[in-house]
Amino acid sequence: MNAEIISVGTELLLGQVVNLDTAIVAQELSGLGINLLYSAVVGDNVDRLKHAVDTAISRSDLLIMTGGLGPTTDDLTKETTAACAGKKLVLHQPSLDRILNYFNEKKVSSNQEKQAWLPEGCTVFQNDNGTAPGCAFQAESGCTIIMLPGPPSELTPMLKNYVVPFLKKEQEYVIVSHNVHIYGRGEAPVAQMLDDLMDGENPTLAPYAKEGECYMRVTAKAHTPEEADAMCQPLIEEIKRRVGDFVYSVDVETLEELVVFLLKERGKKLACAESCTGGLLSKRITDVPGSSSVFDMGCVTYANQAKEDLLSVSRETLERFGAVSPETAREMAEGMVRRSGSDLGVGITGIAGPDGGTAQKPVGLIYIALSDGEHTWVTKRSPLGRTKSREWHRHCAASQALDMVRRYLTGLPVEAEY
Amino acid sequence: MNAEIISVGTELLLGQVVNLDTAIVAQELSGLGINLLYSAVVGDNVDRLKHAVDTAISRSDLLIMTGGLGPTTDDLTKETTAACAGKKLVLHQPSLDRILNYFNEKKVSSNQEKQAWLPEGCTVFQNDNGTAPGCAFQAESGCTIIMLPGPPSELTPMLKNYVVPFLKKEQEYVIVSHNVHIYGRGEAPVAQMLDDLMDGENPTLAPYAKEGECYMRVTAKAHTPEEADAMCQPLIEEIKRRVGDFVYSVDVETLEELVVFLLKERGKKLACAESCTGGLLSKRITDVPGSSSVFDMGCVTYANQAKEDLLSVSRETLERFGAVSPETAREMAEGMVRRSGSDLGVGITGIAGPDGGTAQKPVGLIYIALSDGEHTWVTKRSPLGRTKSREWHRHCAASQALDMVRRYLTGLPVEAEY
Repeated sequence: MNAEIISVGTELLLGQVVNLDTAIVAQELSGLGINLLYSAVVGDNVDRLKHAVDTAISRSDLLIMTGGLGPTTDDLTKETTAACAGKKLVLHQPSLDRILNYFNEKKVSSNQEKQAWLPEGCTVFQNDNGTAPGCAFQAESGCTIIMLPGPPSELTPMLKNYVVPFLKKEQEYVIVSHNVHIYGRGEAPVAQMLDDLMDGENPTLAPYAKEGECYMRVTAKAHTPEEADAMCQPLIEEIKRRVGDFVYSVDVETLEELVVFLLKERGKKLACAESCTGGLLSKRITDVPGSSSVFDMGCVTYANQAKEDLLSVSRETLERFGAVSPETAREMAEGMVRRSGSDLGVGITGIAGPDGGTAQKPVGLIYIALSDGEHTWVTKRSPLGRTKSREWHRHCAASQALDMVRRYLTGLPVEAEY
Repeated sequence: MNAEIISVGTELLLGQVVNLDTAIVAQELSGLGINLLYSAVVGDNVDRLKHAVDTAISRSDLLIMTGGLGPTTDDLTKETTAACAGKKLVLHQPSLDRILNYFNEKKVSSNQEKQAWLPEGCTVFQNDNGTAPGCAFQAESGCTIIMLPGPPSELTPMLKNYVVPFLKKEQEYVIVSHNVHIYGRGEAPVAQMLDDLMDGENPTLAPYAKEGECYMRVTAKAHTPEEADAMCQPLIEEIKRRVGDFVYSVDVETLEELVVFLLKERGKKLACAESCTGGLLSKRITDVPGSSSVFDMGCVTYANQAKEDLLSVSRETLERFGAVSPETAREMAEGMVRRSGSDLGVGITGIAGPDGGTAQKPVGLIYIALSDGEHTWVTKRSPLGRTKSREWHRHCAASQALDMVRRYLTGLPVEAEY
């Protein structure tokens, strides 16, 4: 099955918004074994959109449109595409009811109502995170057309929950994918380690980079999910064997999800003391629903005085070694355990940049400590001459802290060679 | 001048890489007043690429190609595009010398040398951050074709340093844009308020949604930047007049940047006590470089015990009104001021979901307090029947807290009708 994507929106052509939708949809299509041959962006212009849609439905089996389903007058994807496909728009009452419910009103403006008008006979994908529903229908040419809302926060769940199951029904084969997540080794060295495994046709193996980490996607095609799954397993085992304990999960998407799961399973609580990450680690842990059972508190101690007051870091340590030192990280973690009464405490201190670096303590130098009240481990992140952003340094430091907790909880050496 | 972009690379169609190049190029084109009408992605396939290039050079004045200039066999942009444009490739000795110099070698493989073969008679853009040079030349159709390397770290400086000056020489007009940022009123109602202003041709006005907020872009075209800027100002003033104090900035991109700026300007410090946002507010403030001069500490008090221990919220308040109540939010903010010695303290408590909601206290109910030690203001976020994600509720609560601080610091009523 050959597919293409058309993203609609002048903002994408003005460079105000990066087109994430294409990458999100492309990944899912790849997971389904659907060949994506083209993707295009068209502005909010009826003639150009019409031309792009006509070309697409004449040459592809599947056309996915993203964006332009909203309430404003420049949202014209639906009207234009339906016309190209020879379909009328009709009011879909359940979608209107959802919109009324969303605004908690009995009546909405005609602009808002417009979102509930959908191509006749289409399959409707409800929007659990916004107002504009998605839909799927067939053009007279036989091309299946799917329309999805533009905001990634609405598109992503709709895609995963409704569109992927819809497309799976149309496929002759079942595709099963597993993601092997790796922290502590980058995409390039991992790909090199696994080079000879990447020529396979079924199952296939493909490397993906993720901010500060990477994952390997194993995909197999078969007649049943069980069969496809069984085909993936030996390859997953071989990846684990070669990459070792840098593999942190199969299919658990983030370090924070894994850590919350492990803490729950082991009945442990964690508390975080953060300097340069400024709350990011606490934020990532509490991103996980249900984290309240394993996380009571965190302290963002940006100033030295705050490190003394909240965590009892000694003034002598701060003066002798500096706020950015293994000694301070250690005392922060230990102070956090005492302060919170939690089983584990993390301390992070470093220089996130862009300013504040020196020759001795450059931007990107960060110390991370983990204490269980009895023992404390400290690891270091070095900039290695790379010119990375503040955001990058902060994200990677929080990830490394989570990986240390993961290692502790699974009985691995906590101080890995990162 | 009408332009289009073609990005080349199968990795973009597999969703392994987000297409940043298009946004980077699009922004520069927009700044130059060049209309970008289409952008497309094509995989590493000669026939499909040839078709896309033929279509582009027949309908556009300017075609920018990104990616596929490198040494490997799937890098075929240059060969294919030059053939479409009726040009031969010839060796460009200075480019070869740069490549030899880059590798510090006297000879390189034919793959590496391939990068120095460029269309005859082209303008060469040297690559200061990699090996593949870019270039510009004219197709027989009259379309100007520019080819740029794919990695954003190579493309961005080449674009800014060589391509923009090259294109400016060809442009008659200058374009200036300003973004008017709004918190507290959504894109749809704001667009309605400004509906009659959106028909203008020069300056133009366009609405954009942003997570939990929106902004209006004002753009003018003139012979000088000063002239274009002067054309924008009356429209910006009219937007401010109609939208009122929900306008929080012109061209300051985020609430956190603005708040850090205002705190610095007024010599004030802020501290944050967070329950449901779990560190996100502290994280957003410390995202801003230099925030350490206005932010000493934050407390993430997820558990009731933590609210008592760190912020001295009274047990009676927690028992009588519950952790999610205006009373608790108030005591958190006041406790944070006392604990930190900062001028301002924020307290946030609520139910971020997806679980934990009740009929009385549904998911999305969040109280936000701001205290200056003398007075304390409390606002509320209600879910209004909207089914938004945990991430959304947390993000919007942090934004509302920042907006309250902004209102306090600029002398506006703190408790707006959000």
